[in-house]
Amino acid sequence: MAEDLKETGRIEAFSDGVFAIAITLLILELKVPLFGADHGAPTNADLWHRLAEDWHHYVAFFLSFTSILVMWVNHHRIFSIVRRSDDGFLFWNGLLLMCITVVPFPTALIAEYMDKSAANAAAAVYSGMGLLIALAFTGVWQYATRGGRLLTPGVREQEVADMSRQYRYGPLAYAVAFAVSFVSGAASIGICLALVVFFAFRGLTRSR
Amino acid sequence: MAEDLKETGRIEAFSDGVFAIAITLLILELKVPLFGADHGAPTNADLWHRLAEDWHHYVAFFLSFTSILVMWVNHHRIFSIVRRSDDGFLFWNGLLLMCITVVPFPTALIAEYMDKSAANAAAAVYSGMGLLIALAFTGVWQYATRGGRLLTPGVREQEVADMSRQYRYGPLAYAVAFAVSFVSGAASIGICLALVVFFAFRGLTRSR
Amino acid sequence: MAEDLKETGRIEAFSDGVFAIAITLLILELKVPLFGADHGAPTNADLWHRLAEDWHHYVAFFLSFTSILVMWVNHHRIFSIVRRSDDGFLFWNGLLLMCITVVPFPTALIAEYMDKSAANAAAAVYSGMGLLIALAFTGVWQYATRGGRLLTPGVREQEVADMSRQYRYGPLAYAVAFAVSFVSGAASIGICLALVVFFAFRGLTRSR
Amino acid sequence: MAEDLKETGRIEAFSDGVFAIAITLLILELKVPLFGADHGAPTNADLWHRLAEDWHHYVAFFLSFTSILVMWVNHHRIFSIVRRSDDGFLFWNGLLLMCITVVPFPTALIAEYMDKSAANAAAAVYSGMGLLIALAFTGVWQYATRGGRLLTPGVREQEVADMSRQYRYGPLAYAVAFAVSFVSGAASIGICLALVVFFAFRGLTRSR
Repeated sequence: MAEDLKETGRIEAFSDGVFAIAITLLILELKVPLFGADHGAPTNADLWHRLAEDWHHYVAFFLSFTSILVMWVNHHRIFSIVRRSDDGFLFWNGLLLMCITVVPFPTALIAEYMDKSAANAAAAVYSGMGLLIALAFTGVWQYATRGGRLLTPGVREQEVADMSRQYRYGPLAYAVAFAVSFVSGAASIGICLALVVFFAFRGLTRSR
Repeated sequence: MAEDLKETGRIEAFSDGVFAIAITLLILELKVPLFGADHGAPTNADLWHRLAEDWHHYVAFFLSFTSILVMWVNHHRIFSIVRRSDDGFLFWNGLLLMCITVVPFPTALIAEYMDKSAANAAAAVYSGMGLLIALAFTGVWQYATRGGRLLTPGVREQEVADMSRQYRYGPLAYAVAFAVSFVSGAASIGICLALVVFFAFRGLTRSR
Repeated sequence: MAEDLKETGRIEAFSDGVFAIAITLLILELKVPLFGADHGAPTNADLWHRLAEDWHHYVAFFLSFTSILVMWVNHHRIFSIVRRSDDGFLFWNGLLLMCITVVPFPTALIAEYMDKSAANAAAAVYSGMGLLIALAFTGVWQYATRGGRLLTPGVREQEVADMSRQYRYGPLAYAVAFAVSFVSGAASIGICLALVVFFAFRGLTRSR
Repeated sequence: MAEDLKETGRIEAFSDGVFAIAITLLILELKVPLFGADHGAPTNADLWHRLAEDWHHYVAFFLSFTSILVMWVNHHRIFSIVRRSDDGFLFWNGLLLMCITVVPFPTALIAEYMDKSAANAAAAVYSGMGLLIALAFTGVWQYATRGGRLLTPGVREQEVADMSRQYRYGPLAYAVAFAVSFVSGAASIGICLALVVFFAFRGLTRSR
């Protein structure tokens, strides 16, 4: 039992590390605007203008930061009722972490192409990644709860059933965003943004 | 109760990870001076000269490193008297962490433009970010202390009142730096530097 | 004893940090496809085409992510039966960590050259690094188990003997991949991929 | 008392995070050799040649990785006998961490200029940084031991005196490397390398 507790602790610590690094690396995509040698000394107006032009990079950063944060809170919630671990759980969690470390790549993709004619392809990759992450979360959750093997003794069945129901909506919502991306890149990203704001806001209000 | 303690522990671990990564990523902005192929073999004098020319990058690094360190000590102090957590607290803390991970971007901005004519815009973004962080800290603190809900039982009211008073000065000081940036970029950055040296020095002396 | 436990705990935490960062930095090698100014506005088809062209970067990412994850699980398993530490163990573990932090470099190398005529050299470096890591793992394991000095009291001899046997295969398998690289880069990388999928899959099935 | 223990724990966790990130970021300086479009398809021989040419990058990586690892073991040792903390200790430790996060910059400098005519300037910056780190370690150690305030009760005076003696050699050795850098960059880097190999080897042998 002590062994199991220790193992869960180290999985949480490693996962937290990966979440923390993935969320912090996002800022590396925000590049300082530079002006070519032929531009002359840039004025304040020049710099403000270029900073304003980069609005889609800020949207992409905000979207992905909030998404990873919501995922972390989710992961947190799963581990609050999982106390045991086994090799299968380790590798399901690893699959989830792989998808999460990938996030900076589709983020950079939508930051670059969100306002261009290739927005559909970029949004498809981004929402497709969201779909994969939602499926990986469902996998981790189902593996952990199947037969109650890995759960903390005394967890109420009702709580598990409530969370299981929620895990059905995530993949569905991202599947919609993915389908929409082929019609409108902006609408697809808008759905992802609405989803994450909804989850974050629900987090903020539920506890009052 | 054990559950709450565990949750606070994991929030601290995740936050520490984000602080540690954000503070360490700052160094990636310091680039080794390179000499074009048309320059010929650079001499020691050439390299010293270029290293000296980059002084504003070192100032920006020092300013932001010390700022994040002071913020970490602050975060540390808040969590030393907060023992419980809820979803609202998680998301307020997340908002604060988002602002902190952003720091490398305005840092790179002032490193690049501090000594150029666009210094006002760069300093406005930098001090504006400082203002946002100070407000986020105030938000975390007020959420945690409202009605004493999340505090460790037995924390003295006096200590909480003292810290609450301090949280009033931070946003005010950064608001001044922000306002000054439109007049003089250098003065605005100077205020940020004075603030952080003051906080760090107070930390060094208070304990003697 | 309490001292020893604490030391092992901090080695694990530091190692987990290094594993978590090395595994997350891999994504920085995936670059968003950019189109030169002379290309005109890229269409969705252009972007899909370029994303598809970069398949070898995704293979390299998947291979190295999974490899580091399997190594982490391995490291985890070693530390689950090691309870004491000494300076020699610290430095053996450090040698292992050095090899693991290097992984992003050969990964970038095979991502770049896997489908080019220099694939042999790239695969030799990659599988050579795998060989070094396998040897370092064997070193850590043998140092820890020699005379049972550092093991948790009560660990069954059978378990130790089972793990020792497994540590013989790793270096052998990577030595084969290294030798094969001089004949065919693709075959060498294929062996590395087969190895890691085998290890990961064994992890997934063993616990059912 | 419980409070103090908790504070030391979090300082260690944060410091470990900074050490782990700084040591892992070093690999980002190792760039995959690229061949210009005018070169044609690079052969295996071309790639091996370019990889061999970059030997000074590998030396710089090895030197800095081992240095940070030895510093981490040192930090580890200090904290094994320090149990209490105060604000002054937090900020001394912060100063030390700042110097350690800077390491990737002088590392990149010697990697670039070690075999060029500007090697003196690069080696001076590198060994100067080593000197600063050695002084910061001495500062942390002296602050912690002054009057025994922060030490674990029951630490033997002899152990403290032994460690204090060792802290006198570090700054001296790096001061020599710094002075030598103005005569020969290679000799200065050689001294740094010899120092770190000596420390690491002593670590490896002391425990046998």
